[in-house]
Amino acid sequence: MTRPISKDTRLCMSLAARPGNFGTRFHNHLYAALDLDYVYKAFTTTDLPAAIGGVRALGIRGCAVSMPFKEACILLVDELDPSAAAIGSVNTVVNTDGHLKAYNTDYLAVQQLASERGLSGVLTFALRGSGGMARAVAFALRDAGLTRGVLVARNEAAGRALAAEVGFGFQPELGGQRPDLLVNVTPVGMAGGPEAGELAFSAGAIAQAQVVFDAVALPAETPLILEARRQGKQVITGAEVAVLQALEQFVLYTGVRPGADQVQAAADYARQ
Amino acid sequence: MTRPISKDTRLCMSLAARPGNFGTRFHNHLYAALDLDYVYKAFTTTDLPAAIGGVRALGIRGCAVSMPFKEACILLVDELDPSAAAIGSVNTVVNTDGHLKAYNTDYLAVQQLASERGLSGVLTFALRGSGGMARAVAFALRDAGLTRGVLVARNEAAGRALAAEVGFGFQPELGGQRPDLLVNVTPVGMAGGPEAGELAFSAGAIAQAQVVFDAVALPAETPLILEARRQGKQVITGAEVAVLQALEQFVLYTGVRPGADQVQAAADYARQ
Repeated sequence: MTRPISKDTRLCMSLAARPGNFGTRFHNHLYAALDLDYVYKAFTTTDLPAAIGGVRALGIRGCAVSMPFKEACILLVDELDPSAAAIGSVNTVVNTDGHLKAYNTDYLAVQQLASERGLSGVLTFALRGSGGMARAVAFALRDAGLTRGVLVARNEAAGRALAAEVGFGFQPELGGQRPDLLVNVTPVGMAGGPEAGELAFSAGAIAQAQVVFDAVALPAETPLILEARRQGKQVITGAEVAVLQALEQFVLYTGVRPGADQVQAAADYARQ
Repeated sequence: MTRPISKDTRLCMSLAARPGNFGTRFHNHLYAALDLDYVYKAFTTTDLPAAIGGVRALGIRGCAVSMPFKEACILLVDELDPSAAAIGSVNTVVNTDGHLKAYNTDYLAVQQLASERGLSGVLTFALRGSGGMARAVAFALRDAGLTRGVLVARNEAAGRALAAEVGFGFQPELGGQRPDLLVNVTPVGMAGGPEAGELAFSAGAIAQAQVVFDAVALPAETPLILEARRQGKQVITGAEVAVLQALEQFVLYTGVRPGADQVQAAADYARQ
């Protein structure tokens, strides 16, 4: 049951250059399911400092931060959670009586998935990507104990820098290596992108891997995930990361942790 | 039917030191009745410039402005409608692609009521009050052609200044005068106030008047309105002003003018 909005209803929101509907639908579905007096809406802005200033001045309870605001946001908040401080990137701002604390729930979600799926430090792995999300995933894996990794990136400068920070090796191409865990954090396989139909890792590399993790959330079933499933590999999808990071935001904003069934129902509704 | 909120839903809001629920319920009821993709919520703030900056940066479509922000808001907008410029007081901000234009729909509502109820320039009148709302009412009446007025105020400095601006006479007390139209724009008769049970004008003055106008909106049936009705006088209530000014805000924000029945239904719902 959706509550009627009143003066006491708390607003949560998101800021992105190109807002989507996932967060708005996910959070509002859970507010209704749990009978919480909250409302959620996605926004965009061309003036991040004024937008975050508005979050503070209007008592907006929480704000998800997406591309391209994740780094610039750091200077606009009062406190950084270790999840954001470690990687220098914010995707969540929580406003408690005008005090803004920033988190990175992508980092938290990947760490949690690594633990739940038993990704241990014995696994060798390759991580493709060098952007903001690759940064969150690389730090999360390392902090989950995965250190036997190589970072693969076409952008050599960014790739080498990130690899050095997390202590991974670096190579511009995977070449003949056959690691246990393959992690894609590039736009390869992303719906609507120029490489939507391509595999982020070769079928041969997938054949030698135990686990395939694709951070691309749209579609959930990327060519990489489909090929890994076809070969009977364990998979972790970007859609799982997206739901888990949104759930962690929900918990930070409301203090309430929904049940697994409620989260699944909200995720199914949000993807429609 | 209430639409589900999406990234494209437009937010309208209010800013007040002590937010009420009337606007939130009134606007949201009309959005649902007219199937408009808008949502409305009341806010408060302790930082008006940042709050208005947030309105601009987040593309919030409209913002009602209440006590104590009506004057300070003038410096924060890009353009003043004559309704706000004339009286130096803003109660409505409309955001069109980052350009903020300020209006005063209290002024517009009183002007419209004066016209609809046939309040003509031949009427003598007394207006009690010297605050922000008294200012809006005094200018609206004058601009509707009512000039044979006296302003009555306990605050002599503010009262004399306002009277001089609009060209009315000034007196600290009504005394023995018996004008055709009595207008109360003080807190006398307001629910919860120290003079909630008092008459803003004497029963004798009411007896000699044709029309009694009380700007107090809560309750709609103030002691002044009740006494005027008992004596069979024409009345204009603050609740009517509140609905009409909210309606004008609705039209400014959405470009849609609801029918009279829809407005009545929204007002009835909002007052619950």
